[in-house]
Amino acid sequence: MTVLGLGMMGTALAGAFLDGGHPVTVWNRTPGRAAPLTDRGAVYAGSLAEAVEASPLVVICVRDYRAVRSVLEPAEALLAGRTLVNLTSGTSEEARATAGWAAGIGARYLDGAIMMTPPGIGQPHAAILYGGSRELFDEHEATLARLGGGTTRLSDDHGIPALYDVALLGLMWGTLNSFLHALALVGTEKVEATTFLPFATSWLGGVATFLPDLARQVDEGAYPAHDATLETHLSPIHHLVHESEVRGVDTALPRSFRALAERGVAEGHAKSSYAALIEQFRRPAG
Amino acid sequence: MTVLGLGMMGTALAGAFLDGGHPVTVWNRTPGRAAPLTDRGAVYAGSLAEAVEASPLVVICVRDYRAVRSVLEPAEALLAGRTLVNLTSGTSEEARATAGWAAGIGARYLDGAIMMTPPGIGQPHAAILYGGSRELFDEHEATLARLGGGTTRLSDDHGIPALYDVALLGLMWGTLNSFLHALALVGTEKVEATTFLPFATSWLGGVATFLPDLARQVDEGAYPAHDATLETHLSPIHHLVHESEVRGVDTALPRSFRALAERGVAEGHAKSSYAALIEQFRRPAG
Repeated sequence: MTVLGLGMMGTALAGAFLDGGHPVTVWNRTPGRAAPLTDRGAVYAGSLAEAVEASPLVVICVRDYRAVRSVLEPAEALLAGRTLVNLTSGTSEEARATAGWAAGIGARYLDGAIMMTPPGIGQPHAAILYGGSRELFDEHEATLARLGGGTTRLSDDHGIPALYDVALLGLMWGTLNSFLHALALVGTEKVEATTFLPFATSWLGGVATFLPDLARQVDEGAYPAHDATLETHLSPIHHLVHESEVRGVDTALPRSFRALAERGVAEGHAKSSYAALIEQFRRPAG
Repeated sequence: MTVLGLGMMGTALAGAFLDGGHPVTVWNRTPGRAAPLTDRGAVYAGSLAEAVEASPLVVICVRDYRAVRSVLEPAEALLAGRTLVNLTSGTSEEARATAGWAAGIGARYLDGAIMMTPPGIGQPHAAILYGGSRELFDEHEATLARLGGGTTRLSDDHGIPALYDVALLGLMWGTLNSFLHALALVGTEKVEATTFLPFATSWLGGVATFLPDLARQVDEGAYPAHDATLETHLSPIHHLVHESEVRGVDTALPRSFRALAERGVAEGHAKSSYAALIEQFRRPAG
């Protein structure tokens, strides 16, 4: 196949295809980045046209969707009849618009979201999520699976992977921020981050076991409290706000926890489980 | 030992001691809750004084620290020379004040934080964190370990477990809130929570692997970006804000991610790793 874009991610993608024994042609708008790949057997195309013409499967991973279009538009005619797999990060609207453009030029199109940093590409736990037709995905699945063990088609809708992408990244930022807040808090007692780490890691594994019950309750729209009610959560939330205040660390994050739980209680969910807060997140005003 | 307080948690604690083959005396301010325990061999004391006098080790778990003092003050004289283990939730200040009070009446004191719901008490993964002297903890460790496999002494300082408690709970709320936000987001495309769940669980396992590097960088006070710079994070954060806006779900959470990352970039951390945001959390104004 052909890989367009040789940033850190594009280079990792091409490398994983090479590791899988595939012939790989590469190209980058700015030359001079291909040596690590050509050393391993990749062919550097002399032009974009040569690169696209070299393979029926063209994979692109560049800075953003604007770059996707500006890179590919000079080769529109050549893309007709080929499969274009776009692994660039963007919004669901951009993914859908690009799918529309690809259909217009007669290219077959998969949009993918890479839930992994470049060093993890090709590993069993690297998730790469696709949107597009089942037939097209099935045709290329064995090849695409070289990029990661978690190669999955989510939907016919090309916009869905981008939505999963930001939803999952939001879960990461929410987790990392509250981890850093915890480190700031225990740091006021000179507890080192690496001392606190094993407790956090083990606890986070426990928190992960709460998610299935939350998910089921969200789907059912009923929030019976099997363990702790929202009201029960509020008491330690007040402790967290208090500890943050008296220790001079960030209070915005714990206050946001409090405001959210208090709104849930005010709306009649004192005796509901934490899952009842889904109703707060479904509204624009946070 | 004696267990004072027979709410859900106190009942679970007494049950775990019974499971361990220990003779257990129980007492509760409001009678009528002991049947499930006396059926299993526990002795229900006729009075607080009898309960305290029954054992050299007295465990208390009640609603809050105010209740601890109001339950125990009539028995102050009897507590002299005994070991009091307080597993009630509260702040680090309350734990320290209670340790001071216990010292004043001649009781030996451990303060503990239970990182588990009542049904998990006694399980290998139940973490119970203690503050107090090493000698006192060592003396009772084998008994206390009946309550959970993660029975750990953190510090001589009686306030440290309460601090770990809220810090870890904060990590939970931050994770759960961003999970619910993710569900709200994918829910706009009629993706069921249980459909999204396996992606979230697997991804959260990946996020946990980022924590050691963050912790080490926080301890070192240096934030080299091995994978993604703060600037690199900002681009998908903007996508998350955008998706939340156009889909009419909560924007407060993603905007808080953006504000935080933007402050980090504004303070010169564009090329730093995410760990640089610790500096934001160490300050009162979030």
